[in-house]
Amino acid sequence: MTDELPARVRSGDVPAVARALSVVENDLEAAAALLEGLFDAVGRAHRVGVTGPPGAGKSTLIAALAKAWREDGRRVGILAVDPSSPFTGGALLGDRVRMMGLFGDAGVFIRSLATRGALGGLSRAVHDGADVLDAAGFDPVVVETVGVGQSELAIAGAADTVVVVVAPGSGDGVQAMKAGLLEVADLIVVNQSDREGADRLLADLRAAVDLRETGAKPAILSTTATGAEGDGGVGAVKAAIDAHRAGAAAGGALAARRAARAAARIRDEVDRRRSDAWWPGRARELERLSAAVAEGRTTAAKAAGDLLRAAAKRGAARGKP
Amino acid sequence: MTDELPARVRSGDVPAVARALSVVENDLEAAAALLEGLFDAVGRAHRVGVTGPPGAGKSTLIAALAKAWREDGRRVGILAVDPSSPFTGGALLGDRVRMMGLFGDAGVFIRSLATRGALGGLSRAVHDGADVLDAAGFDPVVVETVGVGQSELAIAGAADTVVVVVAPGSGDGVQAMKAGLLEVADLIVVNQSDREGADRLLADLRAAVDLRETGAKPAILSTTATGAEGDGGVGAVKAAIDAHRAGAAAGGALAARRAARAAARIRDEVDRRRSDAWWPGRARELERLSAAVAEGRTTAAKAAGDLLRAAAKRGAARGKP
Repeated sequence: MTDELPARVRSGDVPAVARALSVVENDLEAAAALLEGLFDAVGRAHRVGVTGPPGAGKSTLIAALAKAWREDGRRVGILAVDPSSPFTGGALLGDRVRMMGLFGDAGVFIRSLATRGALGGLSRAVHDGADVLDAAGFDPVVVETVGVGQSELAIAGAADTVVVVVAPGSGDGVQAMKAGLLEVADLIVVNQSDREGADRLLADLRAAVDLRETGAKPAILSTTATGAEGDGGVGAVKAAIDAHRAGAAAGGALAARRAARAAARIRDEVDRRRSDAWWPGRARELERLSAAVAEGRTTAAKAAGDLLRAAAKRGAARGKP
Repeated sequence: MTDELPARVRSGDVPAVARALSVVENDLEAAAALLEGLFDAVGRAHRVGVTGPPGAGKSTLIAALAKAWREDGRRVGILAVDPSSPFTGGALLGDRVRMMGLFGDAGVFIRSLATRGALGGLSRAVHDGADVLDAAGFDPVVVETVGVGQSELAIAGAADTVVVVVAPGSGDGVQAMKAGLLEVADLIVVNQSDREGADRLLADLRAAVDLRETGAKPAILSTTATGAEGDGGVGAVKAAIDAHRAGAAAGGALAARRAARAAARIRDEVDRRRSDAWWPGRARELERLSAAVAEGRTTAAKAAGDLLRAAAKRGAARGKP
């Protein structure tokens, strides 16, 4: 990373943004330094999480929304966190955006995010990446996840506005509601609503939403966002996303949600650093206990307790546990 | 949990196994206590991880394998960790098993595992659940994951033998290889190998495997496991799974892999307990710093550093950091 990278990101320079996102993916230390050069430019963008089961049409809807936002003169940043992108190369969203005639438009920035191994985790990379796009003046910043992995659902749920996309025909919609997506949704979009079963799905979703006891009830909208022609309800979705943010900002919910997101980031970072600091020098102890667990002589939980007790004892002997 | 649950699990009692798995999913403390009553019965089962992209036919193949193992007189335990099961209710594997005529057979135990929220994480629940099935005398214990989420891939990769299932036609196979599944695969199965594109996929996989520089090269097999009729190559897959275990046991690789799995479990448990012990009493500090991050006055990484330095200083003042 060169020292001028933060300045170039803040100026909205697209190659610099691309490079900054690579830093975020690949280099934990450099990412922290980069964000120190950006933080006071972060917080302006509306962060929109879009999630739902595979095949619900998330990419198509996002591409249609991006086109609509472009017509409003807004620069749109999109991070695709598709756990299946190892398999698809994250190509679907790019295809949809090309279809929309947005390819080569410097006002739309798309990137598939992936992290190999730990490196602070996928969640850290996504939040850092969204900060980069935010600081570069993209607004909204959309994070697309396939809401099927534990961590992926958590990532989408940390946005300012969470859009859950479902489609009729597969029974996925109601299952999604049962499975916890209801609790994170600010807006539910029934996509492909011209398909059979849409009316039933809408009725089921309305019934499920009525049962929701805590928090604001999410609005439910229908789209036929094929990306081919017409508005198909996309304008109404865009308006609902904007309205959610305006309402949340006015009522204090936006600030609360951003503080909760920040708290989770801080907790993760502290836990990671404390772990990184604790384990060096304990390799032999861990090896001995791992063999005992692997050979059925103790449990992982007991081994963990043994390690922690031994560390506390050594600490007490030195006067610092 | 009653005190007799471990004894009933060890006797192979199916309702007790079901109850033990609910304990593993829902109660961290009780799960640790339960496993203390089981650990010396753990380690006999062959743990087989089966992963691959959605739609590759994992459930069909597992059901066919289960039938073949039953014919050998083995009792088969299956844990399905399908991150999309929130959407499908995990019903697919159950359907396949019913199709195979294995429904109601006490020698086949199937369970979808899910954990809400943290609770020590999905990985912890899967490993604990596999221990329960192992102690109850199920062997093999199969863990099916859809290899699309970060944590889900890690879970499958922690098995004694890792089977990666791909199917022709979608381009998924080679992408899967590029994305890191190659590194964890002990055996690659090209399922639905009667479909167009199978020859090309096999050739691509062989080329990719030849490029693999470290570790043993995985075998590549073809199946047409429709679950409807005939062997379709399933017997060869079963034989290859058994052969992998025998070879790994003889060469010491099995013990090494089990020790690595145990080490990861111990590390996760230690990290979780240290985190649980550290945060209480720090809520106000975290709240203040979270607001600062949310308002763009600092970064999460800097806030984490501030928290850690403050804790070290207080500790030093008390003579114990």
